[in-house]
Order: sequence, then C-alpha cells, then structure tokens
Amino acid sequence: MFRLRAIPVLALLGAAAATCVTLAEPAPAAPPRTMAEILAASTPADWRPLDPENTLYLDLAAGRVVIELAPAFAPAHVANIKVLVREGFFDGLSIHRAQDNYVVQWGDPDSDDADKRRAMRQAKRSLPAEFDRTLAPGLPFTALPDGDVYAPETGWSSGFPAARDAKSGRAWLTHCYGMVGAGRDNDADSGSGADLYVVIGHAPRHLDRNVTLVGRVVRGIEILSVLPRGAAAMGFYDKPEQRVPIRAMRVAADVPAAERVSLEVLRVDTPTFAALVESRRNRHEEWYKHRAGRIEVCNVPLPVRPRAPIAE
Amino acid sequence: MFRLRAIPVLALLGAAAATCVTLAEPAPAAPPRTMAEILAASTPADWRPLDPENTLYLDLAAGRVVIELAPAFAPAHVANIKVLVREGFFDGLSIHRAQDNYVVQWGDPDSDDADKRRAMRQAKRSLPAEFDRTLAPGLPFTALPDGDVYAPETGWSSGFPAARDAKSGRAWLTHCYGMVGAGRDNDADSGSGADLYVVIGHAPRHLDRNVTLVGRVVRGIEILSVLPRGAAAMGFYDKPEQRVPIRAMRVAADVPAAERVSLEVLRVDTPTFAALVESRRNRHEEWYKHRAGRIEVCNVPLPVRPRAPIAE
Repeated sequence: MFRLRAIPVLALLGAAAATCVTLAEPAPAAPPRTMAEILAASTPADWRPLDPENTLYLDLAAGRVVIELAPAFAPAHVANIKVLVREGFFDGLSIHRAQDNYVVQWGDPDSDDADKRRAMRQAKRSLPAEFDRTLAPGLPFTALPDGDVYAPETGWSSGFPAARDAKSGRAWLTHCYGMVGAGRDNDADSGSGADLYVVIGHAPRHLDRNVTLVGRVVRGIEILSVLPRGAAAMGFYDKPEQRVPIRAMRVAADVPAAERVSLEVLRVDTPTFAALVESRRNRHEEWYKHRAGRIEVCNVPLPVRPRAPIAE
Repeated sequence: MFRLRAIPVLALLGAAAATCVTLAEPAPAAPPRTMAEILAASTPADWRPLDPENTLYLDLAAGRVVIELAPAFAPAHVANIKVLVREGFFDGLSIHRAQDNYVVQWGDPDSDDADKRRAMRQAKRSLPAEFDRTLAPGLPFTALPDGDVYAPETGWSSGFPAARDAKSGRAWLTHCYGMVGAGRDNDADSGSGADLYVVIGHAPRHLDRNVTLVGRVVRGIEILSVLPRGAAAMGFYDKPEQRVPIRAMRVAADVPAAERVSLEVLRVDTPTFAALVESRRNRHEEWYKHRAGRIEVCNVPLPVRPRAPIAE
C-alpha cells in the first residue's frame, strides 16, 4: 500500500473523486503527524491481542520476557517449542550465551552430550528446517516501499518483519532486533527449538534463510540485552556460574489469566500502520533537520501496549 | 573496487594476462576463504595504528572504552571535544542515558541550566553542525557493492562507515553500531561535543545528516551496551544514583605511553579488506546453507587488534 505514496496524491484523489463523492477528507489537507500523534488517534480496531496459545513467557529473576510465536512461518518448530515448554524442558536451564551486537541464547548447554543432556519426552530433538515458506496468496504481507539490501522485497507479516521473493515464490522472516530463532548445528535439519536465541544488535541479515526464526520478543527485551557478554568464543559464558537461570518458561494459555501479561499489538494491515510507517520515513518532529524519506524493515517499530480491560 | 566482482573474473584475468606475465595466481584457483583465514594471512601493512592524538579513552569503574575520532568528517567538533577533554570537562560527570536498541549517552545532565551547568574554559558551548562534508577528490572511500536503503552509495572511509552522493557532492558518516555522535537540542547548531552518545542497537540511519558523528568505539563497547536501561523518557535515568560516573576522559596522546591501549585497525584500502568484505557477503563456513551474496554497510566488521610490539 505504501507504493502509492510515490505517486502524487492529488492526481489519484482527483480520479477517485469523480466516482466516489463520499470521499470525506482529501489527504493533502491532513498535516503531517508524528508517530505519537498517530498512536494517540488509533482506534481499538487498530490493535490485536496476543493469542495466549502462541505467546511464551520466559521468566527470569530479573523479570518476564514475552515472546510472540510465528506459527505461520515455522509451524513445526513452534509446535515443538510448545511441547518442550509444556514438558518443563527449559525450567532450571539457563541463558548461556551473550554475544555483543549479536545474540543472547538459552537452552541446554549439554545438548551435545548424550549422557548429560536433559531428557525429552514427546518433543523432538531435531526437525526439518523451516528457513522459508511458500508465498501463498493468503499470506498477509504489508510491503514497505524503500527496498532492501538483502531481499527483493520486505514488509511486515502480522507481527513479524519479513521478506518475500515473487520470483522464487518464497517468503521468510528477517533477523531484526528482538527476533527469536532456533539454534542449530551444522546440519540444516539439526535444530528443534530446544536452543533459542534472540537478536540484541544490528540486524544480522546474513542469518536469514539459515536459521528457523520462530517469533519475536514483544516485551522485556531489555532484560536480555543488558546481560554481561560472555568471554568465551561466540559470547558463551566461560564459567557455569555466569549462566542466568531460567525460573520457568510457559505458554501464556497455561498461566492463570490473572497472572498473564495482557498485551496488544498494532495491526499492520491498517491505515494506522501505513501512517506510522510514513511518519518514520519522514519525521516531522521539530528536532529533525533532514528527513530520510526512506525506511528499512528493521527500523519500523511495531508498537505493543498493555491491553485495556474489556468492559463487561 | 568491489564492483569488479560482479564481472566474471576469468575474462578480466585473460585480458590482463596478455600484458602482465607476472600475474602469479589466477583468482579462480584460490579457494574461498573465511574471515578468520583472511585475517590470519594478513600482513603488517594491512593494519594501521590508532593515532594517539585522535583517540579518546572513556574510563569507567567497569573498564576503558576506546574511541577513534573522525577529524576528516567533523574537524570542529573533534577539536572542541579534545579541548573539553583536556579541560577535564567530562571527569566526574556521568552516563545519564541508556535507551534499549538505540543509544547510551554521557555528558552534563545540567547543561540546560545556566546556573548549575559545568563551566567551560576554552571550549565552545555550541558549534555549527557538521552533518556532512564536501565530497572532495582526496576523501578516501572504499565503496560497497550492494546498495543501501538510505543513501545512494555506502562504504568505508578510513575507520568509519560512510555514505556519499555524487549528485549533491556530499559525504557523511553513517549511524552504525558503535558510532559516536554529538548530542544537540532542536537547533542544528546547538551541539558541541559536550554531550556524546554511542549507538548500541540496530543502526538508526534516520539520524544520518541530523547529528554530527565524531567517531567510533573501537574497544570496550560491551561496557556501555550492557548498562541498565533508563526508565524515564528516551532512556534517561530517572534517579541520579543510577548514573554511571566517568572517572576520566582523556586524549590517548596525553596518557603516558605505558598506560595506553595499543591498538591497530585493519586498513580499508587494501585487498585484505576487499577479501574480508567478500567473505562476509558469501560465507563459506560450513554452517551456512544460504549465502546472502550481499552485505549492508553496518554489517561489515572492521577488525581491531592489539598492536604487536615493534622490534627494535
């Protein structure tokens, strides 16, 4: 939808007005708005609640990290992660890696050792890779207008930054800040979701289509991004006592409603999101002297806020 | 120089071989190398030492942060920062802002209060903006081949990620992870270098040409990136006791040689850097299943290492 913005708006409106007399407010009359103004003017219909069945809580001593899962892109990994979580696989394990400008990672540090690794019951220890998926007609995709270094086209698919390639008919999630992926060994099909990482630095887009991305941190990333960096290779903690214990990892649906974090996310298939993107392409806050006129997928913020209580 | 890589190498070599019989090693015979292999094979001439006169030390209880200054892009700001440092302006001040996925900032929290702010002697309290500079023929610029969302062309200029626009004849530094800038108020000419910030998240490229960038952290960024995020608006610490005191900020040239951190940086005008970029565009480590074939300016690493003692 943003591509239209490159075409003079008056001409479009002129053509439309001939057949649509109910057009209420010509766009040129609207003053440019900041993101804050756009969000303040949003309506409840611009927001969607998180689905408790596809929301994870990673509970640490420092607080709760909330992750929205992406079953549309990684159905098998998402299903397996939920089995792992419900088996209590992660409880008592730890964050064992923090690499600056890259990732924080958690799971079983002994997963390579068949004698020491934590048992799984129903969960699978490895899964076929889900690096990308078919670009089906039904896949929601709000395209961005300004191109990308790594992909033919980028945009947002529901709650996630994504890319697509009409030529190959594939779509995939992109490694932006806060995205969560399933670590793997050298074999493409060696991951399972038992080892998870989150991006805490500049988007490592070379990982796109090399790892299965499974979701995005929607709250509490600052609990992870401030963890002391590990001194061993690739940011692994070199001493076990540096590891950060996981109190529990749970599917939100399994948590009593009163103990859940009730959040809602801005929908990306709305004029409000389109206006937000435009407000970030061309910032009208007084401070800005030069408007970029462009935006890259990982610089588009997707607002998340506490969900207002529903009137009874 | 990288643009040549898009042209079949054999054809080029064939033409060159006719006039240059000393060509020792046809490129196609060379196996692809990883970054680690390329750096291991580098020669001393591939590296340049930091200039102590354009290197700053930011000393905190947690350690030392080393910053390389960029006088080629921000001569007036760099000169003023060095005056401030030599006046002891920063000593005893503090880091007062840490905003997740954005910046860590330090300086005088009372700079807006004429009664409370710290005095300056020779330093200036505001300077004309140096958001970009003339694209002079002598400006070193190693261009990257894969385009950019925000600028007509990106690359590296000595130790810094940069952009240029042949049409407007301007060049500027880009807001990549670790870049250091001079905070300002709404007036473009209100900065001075007395308030400095460093990027600790995904490159906020919309800040390009809106702030004067003055340098880059070349060591110790993980001391800053793990600081607890501030709870007030824009990540400012809401309680004075949360601020992180600056023990001292010094120009390396003013520090006794024995107390300096002796570092060297990979030159960007070398075949070694070109090979490094190519090794990151197309990764040949066994783990990678999909080669990006592209790289964005802020994903190019510029290696820094301790300088080997010089034989006498």
